[in-house]
Amino acid sequence: MNKKQLFEQIKSKKSFLCVGLDPVLENIPQHLLSHEDPVFEFNRQIIDATKDLCVAYKPNTAFYESGGLKGWESLLKTWAYIPEDIFSIADAKRGDIGNTSAMYADAFFNKEKSGMSFDAITVAPYMGRDSVSPFLKYENKWVILLAATSNEGHNDFQLLQTPKGKLYEQVIRISSTWADSERLMYVVGATRGSEFANIRSLAPDSFLLVPGVGAQGGSLAEVCEFGLNDHCGLLVNSARGIIYAGKGEDFAEKAREEALKLQLEMQQILEEAELI
Amino acid sequence: MNKKQLFEQIKSKKSFLCVGLDPVLENIPQHLLSHEDPVFEFNRQIIDATKDLCVAYKPNTAFYESGGLKGWESLLKTWAYIPEDIFSIADAKRGDIGNTSAMYADAFFNKEKSGMSFDAITVAPYMGRDSVSPFLKYENKWVILLAATSNEGHNDFQLLQTPKGKLYEQVIRISSTWADSERLMYVVGATRGSEFANIRSLAPDSFLLVPGVGAQGGSLAEVCEFGLNDHCGLLVNSARGIIYAGKGEDFAEKAREEALKLQLEMQQILEEAELI
Repeated sequence: MNKKQLFEQIKSKKSFLCVGLDPVLENIPQHLLSHEDPVFEFNRQIIDATKDLCVAYKPNTAFYESGGLKGWESLLKTWAYIPEDIFSIADAKRGDIGNTSAMYADAFFNKEKSGMSFDAITVAPYMGRDSVSPFLKYENKWVILLAATSNEGHNDFQLLQTPKGKLYEQVIRISSTWADSERLMYVVGATRGSEFANIRSLAPDSFLLVPGVGAQGGSLAEVCEFGLNDHCGLLVNSARGIIYAGKGEDFAEKAREEALKLQLEMQQILEEAELI
Repeated sequence: MNKKQLFEQIKSKKSFLCVGLDPVLENIPQHLLSHEDPVFEFNRQIIDATKDLCVAYKPNTAFYESGGLKGWESLLKTWAYIPEDIFSIADAKRGDIGNTSAMYADAFFNKEKSGMSFDAITVAPYMGRDSVSPFLKYENKWVILLAATSNEGHNDFQLLQTPKGKLYEQVIRISSTWADSERLMYVVGATRGSEFANIRSLAPDSFLLVPGVGAQGGSLAEVCEFGLNDHCGLLVNSARGIIYAGKGEDFAEKAREEALKLQLEMQQILEEAELI
């Protein structure tokens, strides 16, 4: 999916919501545990209940790998179940030397080899350009590079001063010479309120993937005040706030209610910004 | 395996060789392709042929994930086949927010959940302390943090100047307050010759995992000149140079020959340093 198509989806659904598919076996409703693949069944029902309200799904690979072979199988089935017109993100935070990153690109972009072909993958920037470039060789696929993450550890290295600004600013500046905003997005945590205006000025045309609204305490209004651009430019992720909204047999309905609240809030924001 | 046990293994085998198990289906000998799991069969024969010459095996997860479900199964079987007294490293370069890194720790350290329990995992430092700490909760398990990597992209961010030194130096300095050299190692590429003395002074007691000897052009002698400490302190990895030494039915013998060359070189270095 290219940038124009993504914006069309946002306008059509009046939403820039990304639903994080991060199920933990211990937290999913009891009645699903008798299913052959409870994790997939959980995701399937969440997807059915929210697919008209969101423009992206983001399974975080950790939640699947932790279940071993069965978990990886749930990931494959989940990817296959995400509707084709919804942007799919492998939140994998990979990155390695060139020939190895090419293998990761196969894992997440090359369906013939791995059984999956996501629209995008999250990548950690520490190893630099050649750890990122193999992912950029796939047409219409995206790299979403970690810039300013939502967690406390953000302070340890990302805020270190370098001669031309903080490390995360340099990550944005330098990586923007590797690919343009048609191929590269950035992860910016919703908890980074005060830094949002600055980040938007460094990457005026880029989509930002924004986790941290909800369970992690970030504010949607604040994110949008500084983060919106003329093609929206935001994918705001919510995982726990949506998928664990209910614990009973009506968990999917409850998830829909939470997704709907966010969608309506987003619709108002898009209308006020005259983007729809 | 703890630090003392690792040094005992090094002295007993007169080797600090780590063999990288990074098989690409296209590169493994033709005659193995008829096996039900050619990747595992390849690894099995490599392990049989080299296990008395090395102290560690390091499968890089990318080479397994690229094969999808079947690839993940090969990884599980490979982990299970690594002898218990040989240090096993999941070269996964993971790292995420705390609750998610805890899932990755399950994936690679918690056999009951995932089917695998490596001795160590490589972790990317960009997301800071809380992305690393969940891995440190497992007794006798190790985090191997990326510091100065062997690839060209090393120059993009790792060498940026911060108020207290280069970024990779700060990664070592700051992370050394999270855990001591009994739990934390660092990845330092063999191609970083001139920086090795500096790195050793920053982490005098730590083991360093050193990729980049062989295919990537790093020199074992140079690494050892600056990198050895009083308990060796080095695990030198070779992957392509060993596993692809032969392309025919004798590939395992050829792999052994290359591993033996390195082991003998290491033996001499350990003797000269009076460590054995």
